[in-house]
Amino acid sequence: MYDLSYLAGLKISKYMLTSETQVRVRYGETDKMGYLYYGFYALYYEVGRVEMLRDIGLSYRMLEDELFVAMPVMNMHCQYLRPAYYDDLLTVKTRVEKFPERDIVFYSDIYNEKGKLINSGSVKLAFIDMKTGRRTSCPEVIVEKMKPYFN
Amino acid sequence: MYDLSYLAGLKISKYMLTSETQVRVRYGETDKMGYLYYGFYALYYEVGRVEMLRDIGLSYRMLEDELFVAMPVMNMHCQYLRPAYYDDLLTVKTRVEKFPERDIVFYSDIYNEKGKLINSGSVKLAFIDMKTGRRTSCPEVIVEKMKPYFN
Amino acid sequence: MYDLSYLAGLKISKYMLTSETQVRVRYGETDKMGYLYYGFYALYYEVGRVEMLRDIGLSYRMLEDELFVAMPVMNMHCQYLRPAYYDDLLTVKTRVEKFPERDIVFYSDIYNEKGKLINSGSVKLAFIDMKTGRRTSCPEVIVEKMKPYFN
Amino acid sequence: MYDLSYLAGLKISKYMLTSETQVRVRYGETDKMGYLYYGFYALYYEVGRVEMLRDIGLSYRMLEDELFVAMPVMNMHCQYLRPAYYDDLLTVKTRVEKFPERDIVFYSDIYNEKGKLINSGSVKLAFIDMKTGRRTSCPEVIVEKMKPYFN
Repeated sequence: MYDLSYLAGLKISKYMLTSETQVRVRYGETDKMGYLYYGFYALYYEVGRVEMLRDIGLSYRMLEDELFVAMPVMNMHCQYLRPAYYDDLLTVKTRVEKFPERDIVFYSDIYNEKGKLINSGSVKLAFIDMKTGRRTSCPEVIVEKMKPYFN
Repeated sequence: MYDLSYLAGLKISKYMLTSETQVRVRYGETDKMGYLYYGFYALYYEVGRVEMLRDIGLSYRMLEDELFVAMPVMNMHCQYLRPAYYDDLLTVKTRVEKFPERDIVFYSDIYNEKGKLINSGSVKLAFIDMKTGRRTSCPEVIVEKMKPYFN
Repeated sequence: MYDLSYLAGLKISKYMLTSETQVRVRYGETDKMGYLYYGFYALYYEVGRVEMLRDIGLSYRMLEDELFVAMPVMNMHCQYLRPAYYDDLLTVKTRVEKFPERDIVFYSDIYNEKGKLINSGSVKLAFIDMKTGRRTSCPEVIVEKMKPYFN
Repeated sequence: MYDLSYLAGLKISKYMLTSETQVRVRYGETDKMGYLYYGFYALYYEVGRVEMLRDIGLSYRMLEDELFVAMPVMNMHCQYLRPAYYDDLLTVKTRVEKFPERDIVFYSDIYNEKGKLINSGSVKLAFIDMKTGRRTSCPEVIVEKMKPYFN
C-alpha cells in the first residue's frame, strides 16, 4: 500500500541538484501549542521546490500556463524532529537526487535559525498533460534544465 | 475609498433570507494565542453562505461548473467580539438582507456554544460570466430561488 | 532516516479501533488546479482523529487543558490516489491498529462520494507532559478508554 | 454595530509611519478560480505589520514572549480590487496613520508586479495584558519606537 520508492534515493551518496530558500513562520501558521502546525510544512516544501525550479531558470507557473503540464502530488513523507516557532526564519534546503523520468521526488530539510534540523520531508509529483488529463513523462524543458546537474 | 453600502442593510428591520450551520474549530486553525486565527473566519463565512445556497436548492459548485458564473469577493468587513477557541462548535448564522442585483451581500453572525455572539461579518460578492470574464447581473437561477424570500 | 514503524501495523489483519466522520471541501482549501491542496489533508486527518477520540468519550481539548498532555506529530505519510474537488463531501475513516504506548499512530482513509478511496495517510503522535516538556507514555485516561477495543 | 473609527484616518492627508515588504503567492493559497483566496489576505496584512514593527526595531514575538502583551484583532476591512494570481510577487505597503493609544490601526495596500493596487485593507488591534487578560494602553516600548514618526 505504501510506496517505498522514496527510499531509493538514500542509496545515492551525493545528491545532485540542491537549492536553499528562507521562509518565516507566520502567526496564522502557528497553532495553540505555539508550534508551526504540522500540516503547513507542505506549504514550505512547496516554496522550496518552486524556488529550486526558479533557480535553474524554470517557472512552475509557466509550466502550467504555457506548457499545460501540471504536477499533482503522489505522496508525501514528513518527519517532525523539533518544533518551529512563530517568527522563526527557517531555511528550506531542497534537493532532487534522481533525474526525473515518470515522476520527480523533492527532498526537503528544514533548519531553524540555530542551524538545527527541525523537519525532513519528501514529496513525489507526477507529470500530467493538462490537455488530455493523462500522465506524461518529464517535460523536455525540465529535462534540459536539470540535465547539467546529473552528469 | 471604502464602500459603505453594507450599512444600507442595517436600515431594514427584518432581513429576509436566513440560514444556520455549524463549524467546529480545528487545531490547525488556532494560533499561538489559542484563538481561531482572525484570517480563518473568512472560511467560516464561506461555509455559511454555501450552506445557505444549498438550503434553498442551489449549489455554488454547479453555478461555476454548469452555469459558468463565478462570484469573486468585492469586500469583507469583520468585527471580532470574543475569541473562538479550539474545538468550539460554532453556529454560523447567515443572512441576505437585500435582493441581489448587481452583487450580493451575505451577513454572518457567529455564536459560540454558550450562545454568545463572537463575530459579525459581511461579504459582498460580484457575479462574473466566466466565458467573457465580465461582470453580469445576478443569474436567473439565483433570482428564481431567492425571490420567494423577498416578498 | 525514515521511520518505518508505521508499516508494522499492516501485519495486523484486523485493526481494532475505528471511526468515521465527514468533511466537506471548502473553496479556500482548493488550489488553482481545482483540487483540495495536498497540504490540507493534514487538517482532515486531524478532524478524523479528534472525532475518533470523541467517539470513545475523549476530548483532545480536555487532554491539553486539564491533563496537560500535548500530542505533537512525529511523522506523517500521505498517499494521494485521486483528487478531491470543491464541495465534495468526503468520508474520513480513521483507525488505530496498535494499542498506544510510547506513541500512537492514526491511519486515515479518505473516500469521495462515489465511495472511491482518494487518500491514505498515517500520523504518529507522541505524548508530552506540558508541565515538564518531556515525553511521557500514553495517559491513563486514553488507556482506559481504548482498552476495550484491543481485547 | 459597525465601528467606523477606521475612517478617521482618511482625514489625515499625510500618514506617518510606513513600511514595505514583499510576499509571493503560494500554490496552496490559490483557489479553484486561480485567485489568491480572499481569506488569506489577512495573512499578508499580518506579514506587513510584523515587518513594519521589525523595521522600527520591534519584534512582535518579543512583545508576547517578554512583555506579555498580545494584540488580538478587533476588526478588519478589506477591499478586493483585482485578483492576485499564483506566483505573483506582491508588494505590501503598510502604514499607521494615527499614533496608537488604546488600539492601533494598520492600513495595507497590496500591489502586483505591474504596480497595480489590487487590495486595500485595515486591521485594528487591541493591546491585552496577558497576565491579567485585560485591555491595556499601547505599551511603552511601542510608544518609544513610534513617537519619532508622529512629530
